[in-house]
Parts: sequence; structure tokens; C-alpha cells
Amino acid sequence: MSATKIGIIMHGITGRMGLRQHLIRSILAIRNEGGITLNNGDIIIPEPILVGRNLAKLEKIAKKHYIEKYMTDIGQALQLPNTPIFFDAASTKLRAEILKKAMSAGKHVYCEKPTAENYQDALELAQFAKAKSVKNGVVQDKLFLPGLLKLQRLINENFFGKIHSIKIDFGYWVHSGEFTTAQRPSWNYRQQDGGGIILDMLPHWHYVLENLLGEVKSVFCHGEIHIKDRWDENNEHYQTTAEDAAYVIANLSDDITAHISNSWATRVDRRDLVTFQIDGSDGSAIAGLTEAHCQSKLNTPKFVWDPDKKLTHNFSHDWIAVPDLEPVENGFKKQWVDFIKHVVEDSPFPWDFHSGAKGVQFAEMAIRSWKERKVIDLPQLESN
Amino acid sequence: MSATKIGIIMHGITGRMGLRQHLIRSILAIRNEGGITLNNGDIIIPEPILVGRNLAKLEKIAKKHYIEKYMTDIGQALQLPNTPIFFDAASTKLRAEILKKAMSAGKHVYCEKPTAENYQDALELAQFAKAKSVKNGVVQDKLFLPGLLKLQRLINENFFGKIHSIKIDFGYWVHSGEFTTAQRPSWNYRQQDGGGIILDMLPHWHYVLENLLGEVKSVFCHGEIHIKDRWDENNEHYQTTAEDAAYVIANLSDDITAHISNSWATRVDRRDLVTFQIDGSDGSAIAGLTEAHCQSKLNTPKFVWDPDKKLTHNFSHDWIAVPDLEPVENGFKKQWVDFIKHVVEDSPFPWDFHSGAKGVQFAEMAIRSWKERKVIDLPQLESN
Amino acid sequence: MSATKIGIIMHGITGRMGLRQHLIRSILAIRNEGGITLNNGDIIIPEPILVGRNLAKLEKIAKKHYIEKYMTDIGQALQLPNTPIFFDAASTKLRAEILKKAMSAGKHVYCEKPTAENYQDALELAQFAKAKSVKNGVVQDKLFLPGLLKLQRLINENFFGKIHSIKIDFGYWVHSGEFTTAQRPSWNYRQQDGGGIILDMLPHWHYVLENLLGEVKSVFCHGEIHIKDRWDENNEHYQTTAEDAAYVIANLSDDITAHISNSWATRVDRRDLVTFQIDGSDGSAIAGLTEAHCQSKLNTPKFVWDPDKKLTHNFSHDWIAVPDLEPVENGFKKQWVDFIKHVVEDSPFPWDFHSGAKGVQFAEMAIRSWKERKVIDLPQLESN
Amino acid sequence: MSATKIGIIMHGITGRMGLRQHLIRSILAIRNEGGITLNNGDIIIPEPILVGRNLAKLEKIAKKHYIEKYMTDIGQALQLPNTPIFFDAASTKLRAEILKKAMSAGKHVYCEKPTAENYQDALELAQFAKAKSVKNGVVQDKLFLPGLLKLQRLINENFFGKIHSIKIDFGYWVHSGEFTTAQRPSWNYRQQDGGGIILDMLPHWHYVLENLLGEVKSVFCHGEIHIKDRWDENNEHYQTTAEDAAYVIANLSDDITAHISNSWATRVDRRDLVTFQIDGSDGSAIAGLTEAHCQSKLNTPKFVWDPDKKLTHNFSHDWIAVPDLEPVENGFKKQWVDFIKHVVEDSPFPWDFHSGAKGVQFAEMAIRSWKERKVIDLPQLESN
Repeated sequence: MSATKIGIIMHGITGRMGLRQHLIRSILAIRNEGGITLNNGDIIIPEPILVGRNLAKLEKIAKKHYIEKYMTDIGQALQLPNTPIFFDAASTKLRAEILKKAMSAGKHVYCEKPTAENYQDALELAQFAKAKSVKNGVVQDKLFLPGLLKLQRLINENFFGKIHSIKIDFGYWVHSGEFTTAQRPSWNYRQQDGGGIILDMLPHWHYVLENLLGEVKSVFCHGEIHIKDRWDENNEHYQTTAEDAAYVIANLSDDITAHISNSWATRVDRRDLVTFQIDGSDGSAIAGLTEAHCQSKLNTPKFVWDPDKKLTHNFSHDWIAVPDLEPVENGFKKQWVDFIKHVVEDSPFPWDFHSGAKGVQFAEMAIRSWKERKVIDLPQLESN
Repeated sequence: MSATKIGIIMHGITGRMGLRQHLIRSILAIRNEGGITLNNGDIIIPEPILVGRNLAKLEKIAKKHYIEKYMTDIGQALQLPNTPIFFDAASTKLRAEILKKAMSAGKHVYCEKPTAENYQDALELAQFAKAKSVKNGVVQDKLFLPGLLKLQRLINENFFGKIHSIKIDFGYWVHSGEFTTAQRPSWNYRQQDGGGIILDMLPHWHYVLENLLGEVKSVFCHGEIHIKDRWDENNEHYQTTAEDAAYVIANLSDDITAHISNSWATRVDRRDLVTFQIDGSDGSAIAGLTEAHCQSKLNTPKFVWDPDKKLTHNFSHDWIAVPDLEPVENGFKKQWVDFIKHVVEDSPFPWDFHSGAKGVQFAEMAIRSWKERKVIDLPQLESN
Repeated sequence: MSATKIGIIMHGITGRMGLRQHLIRSILAIRNEGGITLNNGDIIIPEPILVGRNLAKLEKIAKKHYIEKYMTDIGQALQLPNTPIFFDAASTKLRAEILKKAMSAGKHVYCEKPTAENYQDALELAQFAKAKSVKNGVVQDKLFLPGLLKLQRLINENFFGKIHSIKIDFGYWVHSGEFTTAQRPSWNYRQQDGGGIILDMLPHWHYVLENLLGEVKSVFCHGEIHIKDRWDENNEHYQTTAEDAAYVIANLSDDITAHISNSWATRVDRRDLVTFQIDGSDGSAIAGLTEAHCQSKLNTPKFVWDPDKKLTHNFSHDWIAVPDLEPVENGFKKQWVDFIKHVVEDSPFPWDFHSGAKGVQFAEMAIRSWKERKVIDLPQLESN
Repeated sequence: MSATKIGIIMHGITGRMGLRQHLIRSILAIRNEGGITLNNGDIIIPEPILVGRNLAKLEKIAKKHYIEKYMTDIGQALQLPNTPIFFDAASTKLRAEILKKAMSAGKHVYCEKPTAENYQDALELAQFAKAKSVKNGVVQDKLFLPGLLKLQRLINENFFGKIHSIKIDFGYWVHSGEFTTAQRPSWNYRQQDGGGIILDMLPHWHYVLENLLGEVKSVFCHGEIHIKDRWDENNEHYQTTAEDAAYVIANLSDDITAHISNSWATRVDRRDLVTFQIDGSDGSAIAGLTEAHCQSKLNTPKFVWDPDKKLTHNFSHDWIAVPDLEPVENGFKKQWVDFIKHVVEDSPFPWDFHSGAKGVQFAEMAIRSWKERKVIDLPQLESN
């Protein structure tokens, strides 16, 4: 057993997500726990190298967390020895350029989502990585939500029998900003600023669907601007121009239907801000972010549709919790461990740039479906 | 004040629905309460005349309920004096023919839904009624469900502000018939026998939508046969050929979106076998068959989407019951009273054959949308 | 944008309330956050100057919190340059004298409540401030309790329709001191020491009523000494001489009735140690110190009074929470910010010495009503 | 042991209250159970003689319940032998006259409440009974409510120690009749028709207070017309002229204070439509119509008033139910048994015409207090 340090160049980690989730809760947490144990028993200890525009901020973070190296020059960082991995959590706009630079320097690359602002760029980046033969990955942290992990456990155990449908119900009320401040930034509701619920949420649901259930074949989407008047961060009124709701029906392989509601203009009468219900021949389950409940065919009541008879039945009592069995690990950290193992011992890592590009494509095809008012078949990506 | 008896020819009331809902709980209940009081104070007492194929059955019913007249010959019944209303609850297949006969004899006609098996026939029947200048109506009892009446009350009180969406979530698990007997007849799952969830449920949702919210403009529908193997009344295996689920998105006037799930292959994690959730700028409400709960903007929590933070919140506590204020009347009876008043004092009755035809049309356009994989704009019916 | 420091002379902040609420959580918190931003963008940073009798205590506090100036001589403090504001939290007995001294030195004055021990003195102090043309304010922190802020929000949104009554239910069991130590000091129960629940609580309810609902026109009060035997801080028995309960009925403008129970001799069967229930034509709400629940007319059940029929109904389920929308700010600090802005940019500040005097007057008139056994009309204060 | 039948002349029992509560559930129930066992072991079996204006109705009731005698002539009834008791449940207007007739014929008299429409008449009736030396009683069924019986049990057990206060909180929302029909008749809200909550409820509270706690010494009352617009039985708008709320403070013997809220314009956030809370030195209890909960000094928490600290405490959990120990007997029947025993074996019966007159007096003095805006001392009734 030997312990080896490897340098991980981390670009853009002064923001909230980069600092807390990637640096502190992932890389530093792994370092503090003594590193990652490989299949052969060797141990890998990640050492972060911080890169960013603001040296003072980097210095403060580095000092606080006992990090040796930090700098503002990416080129300089890429020339450091023993730094096989480059990570980017800075702005999406500059992501492709920076990642290409790193890949050209032979680095394996990992980054926050989305990999690019549109499918064309995302696809090109995936092809670039392939050409350079570097390993690549994109954050898909929702997969590691405890609720979804419980669904995955049920799928692995073949609890559902033949799965035929999944319903994703996402949304809550985002206050208009008049009566009380809104919980989301105003640009979310302006198309000209890149807003809209489709681009925001559909890439997430795409990787959830593909990882849990299989390939997405076609999509129909209807978007709407439900709330037309909102008030911004300065309490100024503005007219919304981006859809705040999207109703989606998608077809997956194996005759599975997905119907997905997304709305920032709905009040919540379900178990969580998002719920995922899978129905199968032998059982059903419904998961929120952290909990999941299931009902097997043996526990399925036999309801008779008789609207004239008052039904006094507590339907939620027909479901039983899927318990927490293992302590829940941080999803970001878990994916970091997987990516580092992927790099150093070539273990599988399905969430590469192709996977990221497909999520963006799904959102783009949903928008096209809405505009053309018809089902759109998703083009098959050239194989990786 | 004077009391007048009028004869009501009732055809096909030996079935469960006709006997219990139309004869006993409606016409006989009205008779036993002393009739209907008109606006001018006059009283109308309905006297049923039973018509059907099985004289023995008719006789038994007539004797039990002190009904004077019953017969098997429709022609003979139509010639009885003082019988302005003809009602049909026999099979849909023969409905158009029988109703035309009655209308040709000058009768005002009322019947069970649907008025015909397809839109073309339903439309023709509406036009026939218009040509004969007879009053006509079709049963739409779901409108009188207590849950929907509570939604109507909230709409009348302008509780919702600007309504922007309605979600109808219908469905439950119909057992396959292998493990335990199925709750629905097997023909429901065979297209060749007129089965399918679209024709069964969409006409209902159409009149619910139009009565509560406004005109339906366009529809997208995706149907699926989720459960492919079922066992029939004799426990024989059969292959299903009619869709047992339909996912629908419809656009209504005033920019209202309706999204409707229908499934006989889902397990229920909601407040009732069907729920109707309306979202508006000032409030939301969710109704089942008998109950309704609402949440005004003043009680709307401010949730922040943070999947990494476990949310321990009971979302159902954010809703408050809409109380029962009046004793609930039987919907069938209420609609009978309205129809009789419509005939004798020309009071309004919106649920005529045109309204019935539009429900059938909605289902047909949904099927066409599914087959053509695109949104279908609903043709405007020629005005009544 | 410029930042200006202003000195705030703070007298009597070695006590618990003065130290924690006024110095640490208000003035120092404002200083540490970088000061107060005015409407014109300028920034005001408050610098405390501590004044008191015990130099050692003052020094300890000053050192711990990086405060430059502290002294025992009020006269010396009043002569310091750039100290426009004088604050007093020492004993009520000496308050008037000290405040007059400060006002005579041209200081704007702010102080703990009550401004004086009786209405005559309080009124005179208000008149003195007016004569000196200095700004003046008195602490009314209860107004910023989250529960009351929620009621205020409902009032602003016109949730109640026409308000016709408010019920304030205050009280809890103060142990007698025999069985276990009492939670309140013994002087509270001796009239000769300034005790009594009327002087203690009624000034609070007065400003709550006036701020939420409008002017108080008349009052009827009945006081009682419910618990006649108590045991003091040394476990010595004493005879109580001050009322420990007061039942009050007041009339407000717009035909609003307030009924107020105050008791240190009641056991609590309500949502909080004090509850405020407002009833209006369109809705009602009940608030405690931090929570509030409401019931609109649409959710109001229709109860029939039938004492012979057992009612199994959970009345608390007819109410729905008014959610927390904004983080709650410390009420003391918020009022300090308002007073400083009032001084430096003349923004409105309703809680001046007149307002304080009216609270004392209300208590005095309540006592007179009790003694004279009749309703007392509140004399109109001369306008400010 | 011997069984003796005695005739009870029952006048005006064709109304709902007279028929169900007095005839069927009291007199006939006693007869069917085999009569009343006296202290000496003898048995008394009551035999009703029905008197009223409508012979057909009387006949129908008599036949159905196997009652021998019924007639329309009161004079004839009074001459029947072995009929020591006369009961009246007909209209209040004619009560005094009819009862005097019966008393002049030497009958002991029992009647529904109130004994007269005003105090003067009620007093005169009590004096008449005294002059005639006949036993007399008036129905006070609320005393036998299970909730109040449980309070009585606690009082008997000296649970409270020294009682110092009682709070009666009565009321609920009576719908205005616009939005939905009102639960109470419109005359309740018109003074000219004898309406008003004071006359309706205060006589009840008077006998509850006097029976549970002691003599009422003085009263202060403030009435209000909270809801000024109502809609009557024909959905016609009318202006209300009678108070729909009354806030009352009364002083009882032994320094007990009663504060009583009565409102038809409040929404209910308590355990029942009316609650009675008694506080005493050693314990408190709160009763509704059927339940009661108590908290002894040993279970009394020690709350500290600190409005800045959020209190998360479920106060209702500090109370424990007073259990049902005996099957609850109908209050009407129980009082009948007591009155019959009072007549035949001279056992005590506190609810005589004087007691009835005092209830009416209490309401009248409350109104006077309201009009004169001062406390009214209740005149001492000349002793019985």
C-alpha cells in the first residue's frame, strides 16, 4: 500500500458552489479523510491548486484551508508537474475555451454543468475531448440525491417488474416580488437574459431519466409564461418574457413514458418540491429529494370508481417508506471520487461530455417541439 | 298555485345507473317530495312511464314503486297524452335512432352520455334536435360532485385571481385479473370493443373544463398501452389493444393550460382517485371528488430550491379545507330538476346535445393528435 | 457616497436589557455591518459613548467591544463634539431629569419605556422636547414581534375585510414562590413598589392597538388581586397589594372592540403566552409572539349550536399558518436604525414621547375606570 | 316497596323540544325504565296527560307512544284526579297566565325557560308560586352538559384550591346569509323582534355561574353590532339592529371574577364552540360541551416572559383529559327525575322560579350596564 499525491487544478472556486461543494466538501474532505483507496489498495491524495482572477480571495481561502499553491495564471498552473486533472467551475461562457486549453495541455478535465451554452458547442467540446484522448466529466449531482438513490436501489432489486411510466412533478411558487421578495433572480424570467425553466431544469431530468431508466427517444413540450408581471431585485416591475412552466411528455426506450411538469407558478400539494413516481407491473414508488415510498402489487388496494360514494381513505397510508440504510454521502464528493478513480485506474464514469451535451440537446429539442407544436424525435448522437 | 302532473317516458332504466340514479333517486324522489316548484309558484309532478325490452323486469320495478304505466313498445309510449319528455339510458349504439324517433314525435329529449359513439353522429343528433325545435339535454353529473362545486364556489368568489393552469390527475391501479379479479370489464382494454381510456374519460374532463374555466382551444395527447397482458372475466388471458393511459395537454381561453394524466396503471399517491388542482395568481386549490383544500397567496410559503438541504416540511399542512356549507344534493336529481324546468318554463340549461357533442369531439381530436404526433386545434362547432 | 461617524451617548447600558439589546445587538451590530445607508446613499456609522455610575463595569464592556469612550460624568459626555443622540436605559425614576438635561444640551433623545412613572410627567416631558425642538423616541419593540408583523401584513393585504374586534389574551402562571421560586420579582405584586399588571402591560397593548388598528377612544378595566399570598426572593411570605389580573374592554375608532385579558394567575390553554385574535368580515387571524394563523371566510365552517350533539371537530385545523417570508430582524435594532435615520435625514418616526405618554395615559385611565367602576373616555392629547 | 302512578299534565309538547326532550327522552323513558325509585324504596311511575291546541297531532303522538289521555281543554285536564304536576313548554308569551291557572288549581309547576319575557314578570311569577305554596322549577339543561359535570366533579374534589376566576368563551361565525345561508334565524339580529345575544345567552351563563361557583354580585357589559349587513331567509338584505357580541365582566361572591365573551362574529380557535376555564390556586381546568381538561399546580410549567426568544412549546400538551366515568344521562331527564322527587319526597331542587327570574334579571342588568356605561350591582332578590 502506497499513498500518492496528485495535483488537481481548480479554476473558479471562489463562487459559492465551487468553494463549498467542490473545494471544501469534496477535495478537502477527501484529503482530510486520508485520500481515496483504489481497487489495488493504493491510496490517492488529491492536492488542490487554486486558480482564479482575484489573488487576494485565493490567498484567503488557501491560508484558511492550508492549501499550498494558488495563482492567477492558468498557463502557469497547467505547467505544474503532477497535475493530471483540471477542474472548472467558473462561468459557462468561458468554459469551452478554458477546457480546450487544459485538454491541449493533456489534462483530464472535469467541470460544472452545463458544459456549454448550446448543444452545438457542447457537442464540439465532447468531440474535442475525444480527439485529444483525455478523460472528461461533468457534474450531475442530482443523481446522488438520497431520494433518487433509493429509487435506484428499488430498480436494482427489480421491485417494479416491467416499468411503464415515470412522472416527474417539479415546482413551487416563486413569489412575484411585489408582496415579498422573490426567491429566484429576475433574469430567470427574461428570455433575453438566458432565463426560462426549460433550459434550467430539463438537462437535469434528462440525466435522471437516462441514468435510471434508459434512452430518451422523443419529446413533446408546451411552455407557458403563467405569471406575466414580476418585480425585480430593486422592487421594479418588469414584464416576464421567459416561460415559467413547461409540460413535457417524453418517450423512452422500452415503451416507458415520462410526463414531467415544471412550474414556478404552482403551489405544492405533494411530498416534496420535486417528486419522481415510477409505476411498474409489480410495484410503484415515489421519491422526493431525500425520501422515497413504495407500494408493491401485494399492497395495492382495489379501488372501484364510484363518484357517488364518498371515499374516506387515506391514500398516503398505502405507501411505505424506503429506509435510509447507509449514511448519505455528499453527491459532489462521491462524483469526485468516481472521476479521480476513472482517471487513475480507468474505472467506468458514465457522466462525460457526451452525456452533458445530450442534456442540453434535450432542452433545445423541447423548445423546438413547443414552437413547432409537434413531437420531436431526438437525433442520435454519434457514438463516443 | 296549482299542481300539474307530466308524464316522463323513461327508456332503458332496468340497468343499474338508470334504475338507481335516474328513476329512484331522481324522478321518484322528486315525486315523493311533492314535485318541483316553478318560479311562478306552480308545481310540476313528474310521472314516470317505463319502457324497455323485458316486461317482467319492468312490472316488478313498477309494482315496487307504485308506477302505473310500463310497456315494451316505444311507439305506443310516444303516443300517450301529456308526455312531453323522453329519456334514454339504454345502449349508446341504439341511442341516436331511438332519440330521433322521440324527437320526430315532438318529444323533448334527455339522455345518458355519450349521445353517440362518434362526433359525427353526435353532431348530427344535435342538428336533428335543432331542426325539430325540441329541447334536449345530456347527463353531466360530474359537475355536481361536491369537490367540483367547492372549486366553483372559489371561482365565484374570485379566490384564485388570474387562473393560469389546471392539473387533472386521474387514475388508479386496475388489477390485471391474474392475481385478483379486475375492477373493470375487459372490453375497456380492447379497441375492437370500443375500449380505451380516452373515449371513456376525456368527454368528462371536457365539460368540467368548459364549465369551470372556459373554452378548450387545442389539444395534444399521447396514449399508451401500459399493461399488455390482462385476464378477463373468465380468468382467460388476453392481449390488450386499447390505451390504458393518456397524457394530455390542452390550451383553454384566457391563456389557461390544462395538463391531464389518465391512467389505469398507476398507484395513487394523492388525495383522491381524481384530483383537480387550479393555480392562480392569488391562490390555488386542489379538489377530489368530495373535498377541496385551498392555499391563498398570503399562506404561500417561500421555498428555496436547495437539494442539498433536507427539507422537513409537511406540505399538506399548507392547505386548508373548503368546508361543507350546504347539504349536498344528488347530481342526477339536480340536473333532472333543471331539465324539467327548462322544458316547462324555458329556464336555461347549458348541457344540451351540442355540449355533449363537443365532449365526444374533444376525445376524437385527442386521439387524432396522438396518431399524428402534433397539437390539434379544435374546430369551432357551429353555434347552437 | 461618504461614510460619517456620529457619536451616540448611551446612559445606563450596564443592565441586561441595555447591554444586550441596545448596545450589542443594536448599535454595535449596526457598526459591525458597516453602518446605515441613507436614502441619498450616504452612510452613517454610530459610535457609542458609554455613561454610567460604575466605571469598572463600563471599562470592561468597552474593552471587550472595542469602544473608545466611556465615563461616569453625564455633563462631560454631553459636551463631547459630534454626539447628536442621547439614549437612556437607566431607571424610570431618574429618566425625566436626565433626559431634560440632554435635551437642554440640544441632544436628540431616545429611551427605554416608560418615559415617566405617570402620565403627567410623561406629557410634560413630551412638551419639553417640543419646546426644545429636539427629536425624541421611545422603545416599542413589541411592534416588531414576528407574530404582530404577520398580522400587519394581513392588514396591509386587506385580508380581514372590515375589522370589528381584537382579543388580546395575555398571561401565564407566575408561581407563588412557595412551592418553587417565582419567575417575576416580588415588587411586581406590591403596589407600594410600583407593581401591578396594568402599568406593566397596558402601555404595550396601547401602542399595539394604535399601530395596528387605530385610535383608542375609551376604556373599561377591572383589576383583581387573585393570588393574595406570595413568597419573595428570600422565600419570605408577603401579602400582595397590586393587582395580578386585569380584564379590559376598549373601544377603538371604526367601531372596533378590544377585549384584553391580563393575568399572572392563569394557566395557558392557547397558542402562546400572549395571543392576538382579530376578527373581520372576510377573515380572522390569531397571532402569538412568533407565529400567526388565519381563516378566511371561504374556509369558515358552518357550525350549528346544538349542545346535545357531541361535536368531534378539530377546530385548530380550520386555521392555516401565515408563513415566514423574510428573515426576522431584531426589533430593537430596527427601531434604532429608524431613529438614527429620523435624526439625520428627517424620515418619519411615529414612536415619539407623545406616543409614549399616551401608553402611560391608557394605563392610568384603566386604573381610574376600575376605581370608579365606569367607562372612561380617553382625553385627546394635544396634537404634537 | 310499592309502585305508584302519578299523572303529569304536559302542555305544549307538540313542538320539537317538548316532544323529543321532555316527552320521549324524559317522561316516557322514565316510564319505560320502570319509574323512579325514591329514598324509601317506593317507586313512582309518571303517566303523561297531553294537552294542546291540535287534537289530531296529540292523538297521533298518544297512539304512537301508548298514552291514554290527551285533550285540548286545560281546565278539564286540571280537574283530573292524581295529577300533581303541570308542565309547560308552549310559547313564553302565554306561559305566566297558564302557569298561574295551574298553580291556582294547586298543581306543582315545571316549565321550559325563560319563565317570562322580562324580569318583572318572572319575579311576579315566583312570588305567585310562593303565595300558592306550590313547588316550582324551570329547565336548566346546560348544567347537565358532560363538560360542566366534569368541572363540577373537580370542584367537588377540591381540585382547584381557592378559585379566583372563570373565563367563558362562547361564539362562532354565523354566516351573513349572502355567501351561504345563515345558521340562525334573522330575528336574532333584529332588536325589534326580540333578538340580541345578551338575552339569548346570559341567562344560561347566570345559572352556570351560580350553580358552579356562587352568587353573581355585579356586572359590566359592552354590546356591539359587529356585522351590520345580513341577508334573511329569503336572501333579502337587512340592516342588523341587535347586538351580535357582548363582552361581560362579572363579580361573584368569594372574590371570583368571571369574564365572558359572546360573539356570533368570531372564528373559533379553541376546544369547542363554548369553553369554560376555571383558574384556582391549586389547579385550572377548561371544559367544552362534552370534554374537560385540567392542569394541577404540580403540572404547571414555569414560563418566563421573553418575547425575543422563540417559544416552541405545545401548550395544549400541558393539559390532561378528565375522563368519562359514568355513562352520560340526558340532562332533561335527569332534571325531571329531580323535580318529581322534589314533589313527592321534598328533596332539594335549586332551579326554581326565583333562579329563573335571576337569569332574566342578569341579562337585563347587563343591558342597562351597557347603556349606562358603568358597573351595575345586582339587586338582591327577596329571599325565597
